[in-house]
Formats: sequence, C-alpha cells, structure tokens
Amino acid sequence: MFRLIKTEGNARRGEFVTPHGTVQTPAFQNVATCGAIKGALDAGDLKAIGCQQMLCNTYHLHVRPGDELIRELGGLHRFTGWQGPILTDSGGFQVFSLAGLRKIKEEGVTFNSHVDGRHIFMGPEESMRIQSNLGSTIAMAFDECVENPAPYDYAQKSCERTVRWLYRCKDELDRLNAIHDTVNPRQMLFGINQGCTYERLRIENMCRIASLDLDGYAIGGLAVGEPKEDMYRIISSVEPYMPKNKPRYLMGVGTPGNILEAVSRGIDYFDCVMPSRNARHGHLNTMQGIINLNNAKYEKDLSPIDPTCDCPTCRNHSRAYIRHLFKAKEMLAMRLCVQHNLYFYNTLMQKIRDALDRGTFTQFKEQYVELLDTRI
Amino acid sequence: MFRLIKTEGNARRGEFVTPHGTVQTPAFQNVATCGAIKGALDAGDLKAIGCQQMLCNTYHLHVRPGDELIRELGGLHRFTGWQGPILTDSGGFQVFSLAGLRKIKEEGVTFNSHVDGRHIFMGPEESMRIQSNLGSTIAMAFDECVENPAPYDYAQKSCERTVRWLYRCKDELDRLNAIHDTVNPRQMLFGINQGCTYERLRIENMCRIASLDLDGYAIGGLAVGEPKEDMYRIISSVEPYMPKNKPRYLMGVGTPGNILEAVSRGIDYFDCVMPSRNARHGHLNTMQGIINLNNAKYEKDLSPIDPTCDCPTCRNHSRAYIRHLFKAKEMLAMRLCVQHNLYFYNTLMQKIRDALDRGTFTQFKEQYVELLDTRI
Repeated sequence: MFRLIKTEGNARRGEFVTPHGTVQTPAFQNVATCGAIKGALDAGDLKAIGCQQMLCNTYHLHVRPGDELIRELGGLHRFTGWQGPILTDSGGFQVFSLAGLRKIKEEGVTFNSHVDGRHIFMGPEESMRIQSNLGSTIAMAFDECVENPAPYDYAQKSCERTVRWLYRCKDELDRLNAIHDTVNPRQMLFGINQGCTYERLRIENMCRIASLDLDGYAIGGLAVGEPKEDMYRIISSVEPYMPKNKPRYLMGVGTPGNILEAVSRGIDYFDCVMPSRNARHGHLNTMQGIINLNNAKYEKDLSPIDPTCDCPTCRNHSRAYIRHLFKAKEMLAMRLCVQHNLYFYNTLMQKIRDALDRGTFTQFKEQYVELLDTRI
Repeated sequence: MFRLIKTEGNARRGEFVTPHGTVQTPAFQNVATCGAIKGALDAGDLKAIGCQQMLCNTYHLHVRPGDELIRELGGLHRFTGWQGPILTDSGGFQVFSLAGLRKIKEEGVTFNSHVDGRHIFMGPEESMRIQSNLGSTIAMAFDECVENPAPYDYAQKSCERTVRWLYRCKDELDRLNAIHDTVNPRQMLFGINQGCTYERLRIENMCRIASLDLDGYAIGGLAVGEPKEDMYRIISSVEPYMPKNKPRYLMGVGTPGNILEAVSRGIDYFDCVMPSRNARHGHLNTMQGIINLNNAKYEKDLSPIDPTCDCPTCRNHSRAYIRHLFKAKEMLAMRLCVQHNLYFYNTLMQKIRDALDRGTFTQFKEQYVELLDTRI
C-alpha cells in the first residue's frame, strides 16, 4: 500500500507499506545481484548504512544457486539474512544483455547461461515461478528491454508483446500467491513501462498497464544508451499517466544528479550498480563532488573520504589509508569504499525526503544537481 | 612488563603490559600484512572478534606505502585505526623467502623488491629504523631465518651472525627510542632464537641472547619445513633457557594442535597466516574439526559454520549461504570466513587461558589436540 504524504511540484514524499516493512520514499534500492552486495557487505552492514530495500537479480539466482534451492531453504530473506523488503527483477534485462540470447518468441525467450552455457527458456510464467521461489517482497513483470536507439516498428511490436506478457505474469502470480506453500504468498507485482524514446508509445503503454491496478509501476528501458535529456523527457511525458496512488520506480538509474532530476519529475524508487561499481574503482561520491582516491594527491591525506559524512568508513579511516589499501590490492579497500558510496546514496535519499518534508526540495535540487555529478 | 600469573606443568598463564594495552597470554596475534587483515576486516572488526594484538609486516610496509610515509602520517596505530598493541616482524623472513635475495653480508642483506624489482639493502640498523618509523609497540630483531633441513656448519655461522646483528639492533633501537620525535619512543625489542633443528645450537644461542635482558624472546626458524616432532623437540629443549619473566613467542605457528602443544611447552605468543588463508579457501576451523565449505554436502545446510560458535558470521549466516557466495565468487564469502577463523583462534586462546585459570589445561589439551586438526 502506497501513501502519498506530500508533494512539491511533481516531486512526491511517500511511504510504501510491504509485508516486510515500510519504505520511506523517495528510496534507493541497494543491489545484491547474487544475494550479496559486491564489496563484502552483508545484511547487517546494509542496515547500518541506511538501506531500506535490497534488490536481487532473478537471472543470476536462477542460474546459481538455483531458485528451487533458495525456496527449499526458506526464500531469500532467510538465505541472505536481510529481513526488510526485497525486490527481484524479472530476469528479462539480464537475458537480453548478459546471457547469450538465442531467440525471442511469443512464448518467451531462449538463452544460454553465462555460467555453464546450458540452454534456458524463460517466459512470463517461468519468471513468476522463479521469483515466487525466491520469495521476494516485490516481483517485477517479465519484459523485453530494448536498447536505445531502436526503430519505431520494433519498439512498438516489442511493447505490445511485453503487455501480453504482463497479463500472463499477473495471472501466474495470482495463481502462485494462492498456493499455500509458497515462500511469500503475498508477493507484490510491479508492471514495467516500455516504448524506448517514443513518447506516444510510452504513454499508450502506460495507459494500458495502469488499468491492471498493479502494486507499483516501473519505467524500464531508460539509461540504456540514450542521452539523459531523452530520459528526462520520457519521464515527464509518462508521469501524468502513472497512477498517483502507486509507487513509481525508475529502473537502473543513476547518478545523484539523475536521481534529483527524476525525483523532481515524480519518481519514488531507484536502483543502480553505479555506486558500488565506482567504489570498487576508488571513485567516491561526496557532497562536494566525486573524488578519485587513486589520485596521488591523496597519498598523505589524513581526512576522511567526505569530511561531512558519518558512515563507518569516514568515521574510522583516512583517504591515505584507503588509497594505500587499493595500491596493496587489499580487499578491505573495496569494502570501505562500497560502504561509503552506498551510505552516500541512502543518505542522499534521506536528505531528499527531509527537503520534501520541509518544502525545500527545489532549492536542495538546484544546489546539488550539478555539483554531485562533478569530478573534483 | 610480563607478569606470570599461574603455571600448569610448563604451560604459563600471564599478562604482558605494553604502552598500547595489556595482553592476556597465551595470545594469538592477528596478521595484517600490509596494515589490513586479508579478507576485508578492519580495525573495528578485529576488536569485535577478540583480537588482542595485531602483527604487521615490516618488509611489505617498507616497500609500500613506505615507512617514511607512515611515520609522517603518525605511525601504524593512526594509519590503520588499531589502537591495541602492534608487533612488526623484522623484515628478515620476507627478505629470505619472498623477495629476490641477492646477497647476505655481515652488514646486512641486498634484495629486490617484489613490487617494482628495485634493489634494497636491509641490515639490523635499517630494520630498526623502519620499525621505528612504523611506530609498532614491539619491534623484532633482524635475523636470518634458515630453512630446514640445513647443514650444521651453515646453521652455526648464520646463528652467530644473527647474534651480532641482535647487538646492533639493540644499540640502534636504544638510540632511536631516545630521539624525541619518534612515533613511539617506548618501542620494545624482542630477540629471536635461531639454530635450525640443532638443540646444541639453539640452547647456546638462547643463553647468549637471554643475557641481553630484552623485552621478550621469540623462537624463529621453526615451521619452515621440519616435521612437527622436531618443532616440539626444539621448543622443549630451548624453553628451560628462556627467561621466565619475559614473554615467549613462537613465530609463524600454527594449527590449533600446534598451539596446544606449544602452550604445554611454555609458549605465550603465536602468529600465523593459516587461519585467514584457509578461510579464504573455505577451510574452516570448528570445535568439531576442520570443515571444507566447498563440499557438496553443505549445499542445503542451514546450520552455521560451527553450531557452538558465537562469532558474527555464525550468529547471522548459514553454511549454505556462505557456500553459495564462494561459488558465485562473492568477496563476502572470504570476509565471513576469515572473520570466523580468526574468532576461532582468538577464542581458542581464551579457552586455553580459562583452562589454565581453572587448572584444567592438561585435560583441555588432551580433549582437543588431535580433534581440532582433523578434517571432518
């Protein structure tokens, strides 16, 4: 259940009640691809750095260790130790980007596993069964994520098929949720808006899926090659057609600047591997801009990554020490930096919520939208 | 200052007072080669898993980031965030085992850095200056560590040179400790007993270095190729000649069984990379023996690594989850396992101390000395 608390322009302050806890929105989901945050963080660390919701990847967990195994072990919450809300993606994005795609048909998709090369078939029903086995709080509909730019005709055909797939997802998840021995019989379903960079397709698609009264709606297929102006334009054009009383999730986005722009256009939910991936390369978010810890100027720098940050890394360690850990190829470097960057993202969302509560979001956005994406 | 609290046979329960805190002995030092535990543990984690003393490697830190830099940044305690006692080795062992050794002379040793190949000279004075720059609590004397088996003649010559080096170490550290701007002007010095597997050499060497009234004494050059019976025989033969009022440190040892045997022969201090290295390969110590988490039988095992263990890993995660993390090549696997194995070692020492306090060490040793080294 989504409750809209306050708005400022199109920006929304809300809360989303789930069987695994309430999420204050706007919120950033922390990505645990294979059931763990890359960078050696566990469920306890996630709590300590202000994570509200974890995202796990259906495709990866299906391939290894297998969703049947996770179901047998009591589902993702028990398996990972994370007790808060978990969203699983549909597997679609990975099938189309990471796995060796073989064939798309009306029934679904055939592809090769990136682990052992074996052929796997996944359609809407398979995706729902896998996500039901994983027992996530929120299942995502199975969709085709088309790269940008794409020809209009293909975008339209794909979009129509994705809508037909969504109906099948809903039917299958309703059936699964009615079965008593599923891990999470109250699993929610989010639909995904597609249509590439074509406003007409996007809006038409949005109107069709909105009528299904799902638990939430995502905008997919953005941040996949198009200029960010196109992304903002598409969000602004689709937003008026998204149900007001449902959370809106912009998939795979993005930089702090992207998030501020998207919040100002009415988005409530985000996820991105960028903060943890950048952290593992020593690229760190601060409220003063992005620093690169590999830079020689940090060799003797005893200050924390961000002097204004309260994360466990900044409270306890200096830039000089962490830079040394990178040079010495010590795993601890990655852990400390991932911890910092995820804390930064989770805290940025808290600051956005606070600004919305105070009615000062526009001002906050103006102050930081460019600064936070600047390399200093 | 070492205080002997109680004995049981040759086993000793004591405490060692240092400027950075008091260590309850027998104790196990946790190895942070480059200033960090391999497996992404930081100073805060060490405290949480019962570490009393950290060991850092002089050679590694000299080569990278450089001891001058660490001195400039305030020494190892400030650099790493670990506020308890730190022991630095002398660099000798790594020079003779890891680096490209070029020449041993009376003055010292010339070798190639394993990082960039540059020629480095290290003698007793250099080792003391580096360790003084690092600002460790305890500096180790610069010695030659000879591999076993070694010809008697070489062992004798090497041993005599190491004694001459020890005198030079003491003079140089006294000089450095008198300088006001050293990082730790009360740095302690431990001498190292050598002599390969020759009892006569070992005893003669021990008597000579004991007369120097150093802060502690180590037995070096064991666990470097000889059968464990030789190791126990040498400890037993040297021990009567080690000062009673000084801590005794068996370098680089070892398995839980080795530790129990050595404690029963009068050893107070240990260090070893084995628990963290084994952990990174999924080999885990438990009070029931050693388990290999890669084993297929743990695939669906929801129990913790050791059901009797209270470490953060065992309190929060299952064998099945950690095994999956290994298969998925998630860094978190290593962190959780290193955390467990080091906690196991630190807790084993606590159990040994408790048994000594109660006068039941002999019984404890008999119960566990074989069991703990058994693969189950």
